[in-house]
Amino acid sequence: MTAYDVVALGNAIVDVIAQADDAFLVREGLAKGSMGLIDESRAHELYGLMGQALEASGGSAGNTVAGVASFGGSAAYIGKVADDQLGEVFAHDMRAGGVHYATPPLVGGAATARSLINVTPDGERTMSTFLGASIALTARDVDPALIRAAKLVYLEGYLFDPDGGRAAFAAAAEIARDAGVRVSMTLSDAFVVDRHRAGLLAFMEDAVDVVFANEAEVKALFEVDDFDAAAAALASKVKIAAVTRGAAGSVVLSGDGRLAVPAEPVERVVDTTGAGDQYAAGFLFGLARGRPFADCARLGHLAAGEVIGHYGPRPQTALKALAEAKGL
Amino acid sequence: MTAYDVVALGNAIVDVIAQADDAFLVREGLAKGSMGLIDESRAHELYGLMGQALEASGGSAGNTVAGVASFGGSAAYIGKVADDQLGEVFAHDMRAGGVHYATPPLVGGAATARSLINVTPDGERTMSTFLGASIALTARDVDPALIRAAKLVYLEGYLFDPDGGRAAFAAAAEIARDAGVRVSMTLSDAFVVDRHRAGLLAFMEDAVDVVFANEAEVKALFEVDDFDAAAAALASKVKIAAVTRGAAGSVVLSGDGRLAVPAEPVERVVDTTGAGDQYAAGFLFGLARGRPFADCARLGHLAAGEVIGHYGPRPQTALKALAEAKGL
Repeated sequence: MTAYDVVALGNAIVDVIAQADDAFLVREGLAKGSMGLIDESRAHELYGLMGQALEASGGSAGNTVAGVASFGGSAAYIGKVADDQLGEVFAHDMRAGGVHYATPPLVGGAATARSLINVTPDGERTMSTFLGASIALTARDVDPALIRAAKLVYLEGYLFDPDGGRAAFAAAAEIARDAGVRVSMTLSDAFVVDRHRAGLLAFMEDAVDVVFANEAEVKALFEVDDFDAAAAALASKVKIAAVTRGAAGSVVLSGDGRLAVPAEPVERVVDTTGAGDQYAAGFLFGLARGRPFADCARLGHLAAGEVIGHYGPRPQTALKALAEAKGL
Repeated sequence: MTAYDVVALGNAIVDVIAQADDAFLVREGLAKGSMGLIDESRAHELYGLMGQALEASGGSAGNTVAGVASFGGSAAYIGKVADDQLGEVFAHDMRAGGVHYATPPLVGGAATARSLINVTPDGERTMSTFLGASIALTARDVDPALIRAAKLVYLEGYLFDPDGGRAAFAAAAEIARDAGVRVSMTLSDAFVVDRHRAGLLAFMEDAVDVVFANEAEVKALFEVDDFDAAAAALASKVKIAAVTRGAAGSVVLSGDGRLAVPAEPVERVVDTTGAGDQYAAGFLFGLARGRPFADCARLGHLAAGEVIGHYGPRPQTALKALAEAKGL
């Protein structure tokens, strides 16, 4: 029995979203559009310098399963929060969205992870993440029954940073392989790719069926500047690759060849946080439901288009209704 | 020396904002558009039933001083949070907005107050508030030097619910009167008015120069159904009354007579949370800067129009820039 369209593993993170100008990023040494890791003391310092903020549950794979559920899909999540207020917020939002979430919280350790997200006037987000309790995720938190009950397992590349996360990543992939469950992953961030290039490539070739990446990440992975060369290299490693190119849409590479799909037109880009996560949500939901790649990509662009129109990394409008309105 | 345009006292609250349908309000026995008080156990229960949420610093007077600061005014705030994550969030947002905030947090007591806000598809908000640590505010937290340094003191009617809040309210008013500082207040909510009618009326006559209210509150105060009668009664009690009427704008009653000012046209009402608070922010900023009543009301409508266009009770666009764009 497959109870879940998607079961995802990720760093369980609460987003702290504030507006900032480009000069702030320069002053604080933040690489625009990237995700950088910070320790608790720097998190306090940087937070103190940021503007008024909104808090919203985030975490890349967490956002993705929330999106899958918003499409009407069934999803489960594995990730570690602390036994604190922000952890309660994260768990509530998962369950309120209809996602199964039962990873026990960390007691007596670090606080729930948070990502300090500075959004510049162009809508681009720059993230500084304190991993806190999310680091405490280990292979023991990976419930084999959950993985076996999935049509697709989804792993975020960010998990390559903490040791326990990498172990959980490998454990989930092994259980999935033994059970014949397809494994998907996202490269997450160009700097993550730089930090873990060899490990990511080996893992992909060994265990991954579907890879999500954006243009910068796939170029970083193969250390080339040419998009077509990078995309071709990626296609040679996995069965399905979906590469997003921002406003230019996405390219799906598979045994069927190369398929370019345009992005959804958007009125105004407010905050790009979660765009890639929601693209993956739509694509995975389509894949789990046996839809052709063109529809998968369109569902992905639809979800990404919704989430960049407001602050916060998860849909505020039911994606199921949006998809129906588009005849998807 | 008057260092602050506005010094405000209020219940320091973090908002938890989710979407809900009208049937949910009926099922949970919530009076649409109102603020109801709940205890911690009901807060956990209701939160568990709510949808995915956003967290944002709120509290009526807190929202108002954040608005004053957004107009470029100087402001200070007095209100009690706990020594916990949500308390840190509240304090950060106050200071990040440029508001002076130095009330010591409560240690070892209740958690930071939170208001569970269900927003229906018409944009109307219904609030269920667990007062938590905000109840621990007492007259001792009212720094006399801060009150004396204000052009206007602003008090929220919600403070009439907790005993300590009422005492802080009275203390601030007394210090203000002795120092010749004008006192303003908002009636906050029709149910608050019902609970404390006599006390509010006595306090208004004794100590208040400027009153903010909406139509329902002023009718509740005088227990009449006729708006004009209620407004006239209010005008007989205080020097200045500004009464908001939703999309119909507001009416300013003063020694100059009665002035009706239309609301700012809004593209789409997303979430009315904070509309009254921001009206007060604009009006108070105008008053502190010696602007005519018509301008004060227009500044109020401008700020209210900004805040109802998005989720969250505080401005996301600098009100100073919006006012300049309107020639205000």
